[in-house]
Amino acid sequence: MAKTASNEGRKIRYAVVGVGNIAQVAVLPAFAHAGENSELVALVSGDPEKLAAVGERYGVAERGGYDELEDILRRARVDAVYIALPNTHHREFTERAAAAGVHVLCEKPMAMTEEDCEAMIRATKDRGVKLMIAYRLHFEEANLSAIEIARSGKLGAVRAFTSFFTQVVRPGDIRTRSEVGGGALFDLGVYCVNAARYLFREEPVEALALSQRLDERRAKDVDETTSAILRFPSGAIAQFTVSQGISSVSWFQIAGTEGDLRVEPAFDYTSEITHYLTIGGKTEKKTFKKRDHFAPELVYFSRCILEDKEPEPSGLEGLADVRVMRTIQSAAASGRVEAIAPFEKEQRPDLGQSMKKPPVDAPEPVNAPSPSEQ
Amino acid sequence: MAKTASNEGRKIRYAVVGVGNIAQVAVLPAFAHAGENSELVALVSGDPEKLAAVGERYGVAERGGYDELEDILRRARVDAVYIALPNTHHREFTERAAAAGVHVLCEKPMAMTEEDCEAMIRATKDRGVKLMIAYRLHFEEANLSAIEIARSGKLGAVRAFTSFFTQVVRPGDIRTRSEVGGGALFDLGVYCVNAARYLFREEPVEALALSQRLDERRAKDVDETTSAILRFPSGAIAQFTVSQGISSVSWFQIAGTEGDLRVEPAFDYTSEITHYLTIGGKTEKKTFKKRDHFAPELVYFSRCILEDKEPEPSGLEGLADVRVMRTIQSAAASGRVEAIAPFEKEQRPDLGQSMKKPPVDAPEPVNAPSPSEQ
Repeated sequence: MAKTASNEGRKIRYAVVGVGNIAQVAVLPAFAHAGENSELVALVSGDPEKLAAVGERYGVAERGGYDELEDILRRARVDAVYIALPNTHHREFTERAAAAGVHVLCEKPMAMTEEDCEAMIRATKDRGVKLMIAYRLHFEEANLSAIEIARSGKLGAVRAFTSFFTQVVRPGDIRTRSEVGGGALFDLGVYCVNAARYLFREEPVEALALSQRLDERRAKDVDETTSAILRFPSGAIAQFTVSQGISSVSWFQIAGTEGDLRVEPAFDYTSEITHYLTIGGKTEKKTFKKRDHFAPELVYFSRCILEDKEPEPSGLEGLADVRVMRTIQSAAASGRVEAIAPFEKEQRPDLGQSMKKPPVDAPEPVNAPSPSEQ
Repeated sequence: MAKTASNEGRKIRYAVVGVGNIAQVAVLPAFAHAGENSELVALVSGDPEKLAAVGERYGVAERGGYDELEDILRRARVDAVYIALPNTHHREFTERAAAAGVHVLCEKPMAMTEEDCEAMIRATKDRGVKLMIAYRLHFEEANLSAIEIARSGKLGAVRAFTSFFTQVVRPGDIRTRSEVGGGALFDLGVYCVNAARYLFREEPVEALALSQRLDERRAKDVDETTSAILRFPSGAIAQFTVSQGISSVSWFQIAGTEGDLRVEPAFDYTSEITHYLTIGGKTEKKTFKKRDHFAPELVYFSRCILEDKEPEPSGLEGLADVRVMRTIQSAAASGRVEAIAPFEKEQRPDLGQSMKKPPVDAPEPVNAPSPSEQ
């Protein structure tokens, strides 16, 4: 769809596919602040009870099961899907939406394998529809400001990134099940890998890692905890620990020859985010208000569709993280440093993408408990 | 020397061997608060100018060069040496002091190899003199309280330790020179390894690591930056990054199933130390006053001598860290997970060792610049 006068005032019509916890507490409420160019017109889920209750709540009449996807997309004249399904289903639903000529905004991590990511990029490209991966922090002021600080030279040469991102996940939650793409690395590590990449603005070339499983109830075939080290071409090092079996912690720190910046919490959408910037031994604190992280994604993706622009974060951005995480998995299994194949990536998020939307009140979810035990 | 009535009121007579920056700004001033059982009676250095100026400052008449060590020990009736020499010289001077029947308090890291550590343990044991490694944090309230918190169960099962300890070291400083045992791992990593061990109260069994060198002026044959991951028998993971080429940062965090504790700064003796204890999402802050970390070592070691007790931290404690660091070096070189040989260690520091002494004003050092560029 080209950018034309006829798009003035037009709203992109969304179907949300997958009505689990994240859709209910974050994606669906976000439409309230995305009304300038986005509207919710359909819901797709395998749970009729959820569909009825949530459809009622948002006044969405067009709804149905996964096998009805194509019918619903057509009936509701859907322009774009927001895929909030388990990671292992991202490819199938991206391909089906693309085949129906529908644009795709897909949750991260993009998929569990490079092959799936590449298939998703191909499917959308072949049908001429947009593909964006839902990296909400690419529109979040505190994270984007951290990028600006790293680039400004205030920290000197930026040499290290370190991060700790943990949460005690309820045993049985999909985030802990291998058959739907669970585990700490793919669930939480994707934030750390993505942050290291957007802060350093280059692609890592080597990974080493150690994974651990302590609570068999929580982590059957997946990593409960992963600790990884990445080497970047500039010589910068990123290291992080993520865990689904450790009480909630969420921060990153970047440090250079002249100073450091700690961002805490770093990855959360349910609280304000604070910068602790230390230069020459003096620390300045700056707090960024709690915001809705999801409405900006909808507004931005709708703009990309209406103005025919390639989204940042694109499918390549999703693939860039998946390939790093796959190498981390492989390094954890082999116990050796593993090379990460070269990868060209020009497009990076920057402060220009910042978009401020007021926070939402999350409604009580229907048949979709919080991932957290706490 | 057995604990006898004749030891009442007796003071242990110390020679400080090596009069570099740490001796001048920290060890020598500490005698002012260790007067209850310790006194400074001799200085040994290769720099006559330093000897004269510093000897004058502290009214120490017995002083001389390294080849005069045995003479000075005898002339000044020295009971114990405080070895503040470059790491590669610790073994030689420990052996010489022991041969002269003198007790040894030796700076950390104990030595550069397990072989040297074992020789130092043997030499002191054979001559019936005490050997203590100068782990000042084994007497520091904030670090010892962190141990208590970890043991108390407040954090639940403690699963991860993470630490970041960096400083831009002046090019040319001994800490950057391989021939005297420099590099970030041995200079700074010893704190992280020791902290992980005193917090988890067990010995790691596997290491993986990555070392990096960016500034050739600073790090010729040594690691400028090392990032390491250690696996412990309980399943706990420790990971840390240390660097001599990154602006000053100093903290550790331990996290368990119920909460976490961040200690920042964690390793410094020039400032207060703060605990940030988070349980159930609520953070309590507790600040521990700036203290002298060196006088407690002197007072404690003198007590061990006077009361004929085995010091904690012993030579085995020093060896325990060196063997872990050597495996980290080896893992960084091989790019593989390296097993750390089993090691029995019963004695661990605890809050009972806390000793509070007022901070000292560091005098302007003579011919001994600060390691820091900043």
